Amino acid sequence: MLIHSASQILTLAGGPQRGQNLGQLGLIPNGALLIQGEKIVTAGPSEELQAAYPDEPQIDAANCVVMPGFVDPHTHLIWVGDRAAEFEMRLQGKTYLEILAAGGGILSTVRATRAASLYSLLGETRPRMLTMLEHGTTPAEAKTGYGLETESELRMLQALIALDEEGPLELAITFLGAHAIPPEFKDDPQAYTDHLCVNMLPAVGAWWPDGRQLPFVDVFCETGAFDLDQSRQILSLAKKLGFPLKIHADEFDNLGGAALAAELHAVSADHLVATSEEDINILAESDTVAVALPNTPFGLAEDHYTPAQAILEAGGILALATDLNPGTAWCENMQFAIALACRYMHLTPAQAIAAATINAAAAISRADQIGSLEPGKQGDVLILNVPNYQHLGYRFGTNLVRTVVKKGDVVVRNSNG
Amino acid sequence: MLIHSASQILTLAGGPQRGQNLGQLGLIPNGALLIQGEKIVTAGPSEELQAAYPDEPQIDAANCVVMPGFVDPHTHLIWVGDRAAEFEMRLQGKTYLEILAAGGGILSTVRATRAASLYSLLGETRPRMLTMLEHGTTPAEAKTGYGLETESELRMLQALIALDEEGPLELAITFLGAHAIPPEFKDDPQAYTDHLCVNMLPAVGAWWPDGRQLPFVDVFCETGAFDLDQSRQILSLAKKLGFPLKIHADEFDNLGGAALAAELHAVSADHLVATSEEDINILAESDTVAVALPNTPFGLAEDHYTPAQAILEAGGILALATDLNPGTAWCENMQFAIALACRYMHLTPAQAIAAATINAAAAISRADQIGSLEPGKQGDVLILNVPNYQHLGYRFGTNLVRTVVKKGDVVVRNSNG
Repeated sequence: MLIHSASQILTLAGGPQRGQNLGQLGLIPNGALLIQGEKIVTAGPSEELQAAYPDEPQIDAANCVVMPGFVDPHTHLIWVGDRAAEFEMRLQGKTYLEILAAGGGILSTVRATRAASLYSLLGETRPRMLTMLEHGTTPAEAKTGYGLETESELRMLQALIALDEEGPLELAITFLGAHAIPPEFKDDPQAYTDHLCVNMLPAVGAWWPDGRQLPFVDVFCETGAFDLDQSRQILSLAKKLGFPLKIHADEFDNLGGAALAAELHAVSADHLVATSEEDINILAESDTVAVALPNTPFGLAEDHYTPAQAILEAGGILALATDLNPGTAWCENMQFAIALACRYMHLTPAQAIAAATINAAAAISRADQIGSLEPGKQGDVLILNVPNYQHLGYRFGTNLVRTVVKKGDVVVRNSNG
Repeated sequence: MLIHSASQILTLAGGPQRGQNLGQLGLIPNGALLIQGEKIVTAGPSEELQAAYPDEPQIDAANCVVMPGFVDPHTHLIWVGDRAAEFEMRLQGKTYLEILAAGGGILSTVRATRAASLYSLLGETRPRMLTMLEHGTTPAEAKTGYGLETESELRMLQALIALDEEGPLELAITFLGAHAIPPEFKDDPQAYTDHLCVNMLPAVGAWWPDGRQLPFVDVFCETGAFDLDQSRQILSLAKKLGFPLKIHADEFDNLGGAALAAELHAVSADHLVATSEEDINILAESDTVAVALPNTPFGLAEDHYTPAQAILEAGGILALATDLNPGTAWCENMQFAIALACRYMHLTPAQAIAAATINAAAAISRADQIGSLEPGKQGDVLILNVPNYQHLGYRFGTNLVRTVVKKGDVVVRNSNG
């Protein structure tokens, strides 16, 4: 397949972009992209490639931008139940932690998810995956964490594996048994932490299908959830068991999760809103990717966003994700995370695009396969119905993706334009 | 056509909603809606209507919300040229008024629009109208104002009339010759004001097709554009010539435009960010609709939004619009204006929905024809792929509309869900 005549091809070539190097788009004006089978073959000037490959099936991308699919490296896309009413409570001034303390919030999703069959887990999640795909997300990370007991967590993992195998949206799966303190342990977080380590993590390892890459293990390191010692306990054991690591760090309070991520060589540390300057520096010296989730403060109408400029100045690897979840940020659209990042994290569109593609791929350890248009990489490609890349960021609240190509197949054709 | 089994029908019956009465949804659980020809016939319990009208074509709206189409009462949807690069300038800290003073901003759109043929005006605008329609906007207001000279302004009016006649998106047309001071008059705003009054307004009146309702006349009453006296001069004359009135008031500075709107019985006063308490009270005692445009401060990453609570407490009629325009807010999606209004203007979802439908219809003087699902009204109806109305507001950055019915015809079927 030859996608030709694009006003701009963004290759994002050259691997993850650290610090102030963020924003290297590898832009080819009037470009073309050759995909054969599931793989990218080459990108270059449209005239040359059209002359060299006249017999390939052609897709005309005139007046369009062609770029790698978005990678969404932090989502809680699988849940059941409805929390729209809670949104109204929050508008009336209740905080996330207050709703959590009152047994609402995440625990209402836990109740509904525990009671759900595998069938309803799949059924409620598929439309969200379709929406993500229609908005240009090709691989997404997806976390458990609404079960908080072995059986329900394994059912969530089972559902995520099934959804990943169904395709076309691939999932990078994360076990987040440490998402919240379940009601059974509400007065004894340490007992749940021990239970996680003694029973749940080994159970996940034993249950996990042979031959499939182990899931990430993630912890919500936060006031009201897991403190720093508990987070270290869980993640250290997970590391010993061979799991790659992630962490929710400093969303509301600075407990030290970012430094812990660096210490344990976690693949990513996510949220990073309240992170101290010292921890930003520690993180920036590591290979741990800093994942900003601007949809979450937006969803909560809070005005504290990840200090992206400080992270870039310190030399960190910055990525963007949606944090899609039923409590604080039901938004499947990575383009909206980009629009927020430009406005509230002061990224340029080019920086935000790199953070949403190649760096986001690094945040799920897949930068060797996806996130850029380089020879041999997976053919996950977007055609955007815009004449230049700055329209990402500039425009907001709609979907600029015209066509989604997944592993070399056209899987979405939107009607826009 | 019988749209049945909706989990909620929102009729918005009862006319425009003033002050604290805002948010009366007229909710019918498990409801159905009968449309015959172009008109709403009745809404009621689904079982009853299904039994009474077994032979009507059926549309199953199970697990969906059915509501009137959104009305977008403030847009600048017709322009040519690309200002994505200017977005990056703004991210670097330049303000709207600084860019305007430097001859950039709106004047770059003016240059491109003056040079454009009718054909390219139509061609560039149609995709935006389609996007609006796909997101559930049924009628939209649409302003000229990128010509700023008689010939170009008339060409914009001609294009808007042609687009309205093409359909299916209806347009309520506004002449905004007083959008900015054109370059020819940059040192003498009063001379342009006089020219508008002596030449342009009469020319519009003379040119306007017989039998078509006169357009609104609007003025951008703002520092750097038209001061209060100039705004009064233009609007008073327009009123004398029979035009209905609108005004851009207090977007950045409080010049008194809101009180002027009330004094002249303008149909709406729009923006209202910097409005004084006194002017809010004057406006609230009038029939002039207060139109909030939350996408604009969002687009500019500013944190001052229309003080909706003060307007409601004073008893004003509050509406929402997108302000779709190439400079500050390229967003066609009324659902996003609702999401912002809930977060930054502290409206409940029910209030924001009423502001985006029946009150928005009042802001273009069409509350007798559209904006609610009442017998005899135009069959402009949305089926949203959500189980309850709070999902509007709660969710953001995507499109929740499944089906758009315009004058009794299904004109959009989105793939979501």
